[in-house]
Amino acid sequence: MEQLFVIKIGGNIIDEDAKLESFLREFASLKGKKILVHGGGKLATKLADQLGYPQKLIGGRRITDSDTLRIVTMVYAGYVNKNIVAKLQAKGCNSIGISGADGNALEAHKRIHSEIDYGFVGDIDQVNTSFLKGLLDQQIAIVLAPITHDGNGQLLNTNADTVAQEIAKALSKTYEVRLIYSFEKSGVLLNVNDEQSVIRQINPSSFGKLKQEQAIFAGMLPKLENAFTALNNGVKKVIIGRAEELQKLIDGTAGTTIVNE
Amino acid sequence: MEQLFVIKIGGNIIDEDAKLESFLREFASLKGKKILVHGGGKLATKLADQLGYPQKLIGGRRITDSDTLRIVTMVYAGYVNKNIVAKLQAKGCNSIGISGADGNALEAHKRIHSEIDYGFVGDIDQVNTSFLKGLLDQQIAIVLAPITHDGNGQLLNTNADTVAQEIAKALSKTYEVRLIYSFEKSGVLLNVNDEQSVIRQINPSSFGKLKQEQAIFAGMLPKLENAFTALNNGVKKVIIGRAEELQKLIDGTAGTTIVNE
Repeated sequence: MEQLFVIKIGGNIIDEDAKLESFLREFASLKGKKILVHGGGKLATKLADQLGYPQKLIGGRRITDSDTLRIVTMVYAGYVNKNIVAKLQAKGCNSIGISGADGNALEAHKRIHSEIDYGFVGDIDQVNTSFLKGLLDQQIAIVLAPITHDGNGQLLNTNADTVAQEIAKALSKTYEVRLIYSFEKSGVLLNVNDEQSVIRQINPSSFGKLKQEQAIFAGMLPKLENAFTALNNGVKKVIIGRAEELQKLIDGTAGTTIVNE
Repeated sequence: MEQLFVIKIGGNIIDEDAKLESFLREFASLKGKKILVHGGGKLATKLADQLGYPQKLIGGRRITDSDTLRIVTMVYAGYVNKNIVAKLQAKGCNSIGISGADGNALEAHKRIHSEIDYGFVGDIDQVNTSFLKGLLDQQIAIVLAPITHDGNGQLLNTNADTVAQEIAKALSKTYEVRLIYSFEKSGVLLNVNDEQSVIRQINPSSFGKLKQEQAIFAGMLPKLENAFTALNNGVKKVIIGRAEELQKLIDGTAGTTIVNE
């Protein structure tokens, strides 16, 4: 099977021009088929502040009311998405920026929760793999903003990590998929304050031990649980590490590689 | 040659939910290959006002400084574009929303003017017809926001009427193109206050007479000059009329049809 890279970049990379530039240079020079999933949460928060819209949080979770939905649609699918595409074009990487509504790429439903109304948040039902494959087959890199739709005209806000995972899983029937979560850290760290303490490889048995010893920063656990879910659903490899070391992450000379054996 | 509709919708339609809904219903049910070009100027102005960015005008022309560029990118390529796509999907019309940066659809250069610095305004150099054809061939309607790029990573603001015209001209080598300018008026009017005074057909000789008699509202003259330029460059027909009467415009039972003979 042909290889496909599904790469998610974290918010801190998007905010800083130099880091984004450096990441996009590595992404542009990456050979083969590739999909970039981005968020832009900090820029969205900044715009909401500028407009004087208070952030609504329930139980620590951000609620997407209609104002917030408008803002994330503008920032993610507009500003961030189009600037990334223009920068990739400048680097000779032909790319197309889409949301989940475009080509019906990601169909979702508004989250139903017995206690919390998350607002316009979408849980993904279906990935239109043939549409994505059609673009990839034209040697176009896909830049995906985490805005989905419900098929009835409603846009929905969806977590970018989840978008990357669902796409990686769905496309693993067609491609040998490497799913890369890239952000500002060197990988999964044994000591959250020591960038040298990267755990180079994690498999189900070592993950069990690390959890037992409470050796991993709690915030990283859901990412790892998600990584194993992806591996159990056909994804070949999951890699976590620094966005600016993309090629090294892929070569296996940096970051944390999560495998299923 | 196969038919292609290139349809531009004016700002007043985008602002009003009921009018937009009615237009999109007609657009969705239109058979064959189609491209929709939209602006969103009023929403962009509203956001600029909310953010307290003053509009910069020189000689009556709006200047696109970096704040304005950010706003039009968010509003046109984000909010308006993605909402139109989601609404079309709900009507069973598979569509994809792009800017000129996506797939390198529209390459432009920053406008050079001896006296006025228009800021980040782009004049189109090239239309990537094979990319657009590739999407149309998959029976996907294209929804195009009038944001272009210069190939060096810079997004640029481009007039939506011009985008529609350039695309129509470029694609007329491949398709029999009908270019439709749809807005809130019934067509080109003899009396700007009388929606019944639509001039049903204009050709070069009648246009000459109308100009001589100063029978046409001055604001409509550039649109008509552009229409003849399009016709002289291979576009089959140009139609001007009410967005909510799209099918009638195409059938020739409403609006103004401009022909070259």
